[in-house]
Amino acid sequence: MALHHTVYAASNFKFGQKGSKEPKDASVTERWTRIKNRYEVEGPRRTVEAVLIVHQHNHPHILLLQTGANYFQLPGGRLRPGEEEVEGLKRKLTNKLSPENDSLKMDWEIGDCVGCFYRPNFEQVMYPYLPAHITKPKEIKKVYMIRLPESCYFAVPSNLKLLAVPLFELYDNASRYGPLIAGLPMMLSRFQFVKA
Amino acid sequence: MALHHTVYAASNFKFGQKGSKEPKDASVTERWTRIKNRYEVEGPRRTVEAVLIVHQHNHPHILLLQTGANYFQLPGGRLRPGEEEVEGLKRKLTNKLSPENDSLKMDWEIGDCVGCFYRPNFEQVMYPYLPAHITKPKEIKKVYMIRLPESCYFAVPSNLKLLAVPLFELYDNASRYGPLIAGLPMMLSRFQFVKA
Ligand SMILES: [Zn+2]
Ligand SMILES: [Zn+2]
Ligand SMILES: [Zn+2]
Ligand SMILES: [Zn+2]
Repeated sequence: MALHHTVYAASNFKFGQKGSKEPKDASVTERWTRIKNRYEVEGPRRTVEAVLIVHQHNHPHILLLQTGANYFQLPGGRLRPGEEEVEGLKRKLTNKLSPENDSLKMDWEIGDCVGCFYRPNFEQVMYPYLPAHITKPKEIKKVYMIRLPESCYFAVPSNLKLLAVPLFELYDNASRYGPLIAGLPMMLSRFQFVKA
Repeated sequence: MALHHTVYAASNFKFGQKGSKEPKDASVTERWTRIKNRYEVEGPRRTVEAVLIVHQHNHPHILLLQTGANYFQLPGGRLRPGEEEVEGLKRKLTNKLSPENDSLKMDWEIGDCVGCFYRPNFEQVMYPYLPAHITKPKEIKKVYMIRLPESCYFAVPSNLKLLAVPLFELYDNASRYGPLIAGLPMMLSRFQFVKA
């Protein structure tokens, strides 16, 4: 009954750079204002994020984007109104991680949904369930596994860093990574990682 | 792409009592000694546990067994050598939760594996991944979803209490419930609970 997930060595992959993807907002206040205004028009914000796993000396590592000194995120982003989750996540992954050269672009293979998070208010905090008596959350975030090919080329925006962080570093470490990323070892524990 | 899990109201179910299931050991030391001795003979201990979900005023609640003042567990237990996980979990659920009257016994329907935990040493702590450089853990625990029928009869050993605890009470509450049970909201976040 085990769920196998094939994981390739980090050394199989090439990591390069591309043009920076600057944040849309100059400040946190500006960001929430933009998000609130959009909510009035479009309803709950829908976001999708991806779990990409490689191994280093046999331990599974999650690929995280680092923005600034202490902020980590999974690659992903906001869906357009009406956009389908899997298609939208592929678009976001290409935007965040594919080389600009079309011949090097990947056809991302999206696997299982491994988590779903709800933002009840226009605030940082999200929950892994729809909080009590919230009928219309401000945001719904879905996290998907990615089945990586045996090797590929990642191009990382020059203002971001791509890190491979082992599960044991994330586990029980919400103070550094936030509850969602620190919860990944729990969300992924049902998978058996098979090194290829 | 959402994973639906049908949840019935707690009031659909009947909760009764049956004879007590006393713990096998008189002390914690005795327990670890017994487990160590068995490990020498049989190898890694394999345990299985079950997530049974009902709803109360529309919030999903997990059924937990309470043993003593401050110890909570999911129903389940140890597999016999060679015993298959799903069959073993059914046996354990019948032992822990089914009435002694055969006509009231359930045919448990075992769903997805939602988590897998590893005990590296003969100690309380378990991890949601195989810790680094551990090739032969002392215990492997698998957690499965149960698809409950619309209604049934639970008979709880008289020395235990069966509690229905909401996800929001478990979340981020490892100090009370331990990391595994406190991690259930993360492990289950990909499910959409549909009230029936
Ligand atoms: Zn997979
Ligand atoms: Zn190592
Ligand atoms: Zn289910
Ligand atoms: Zn309520």
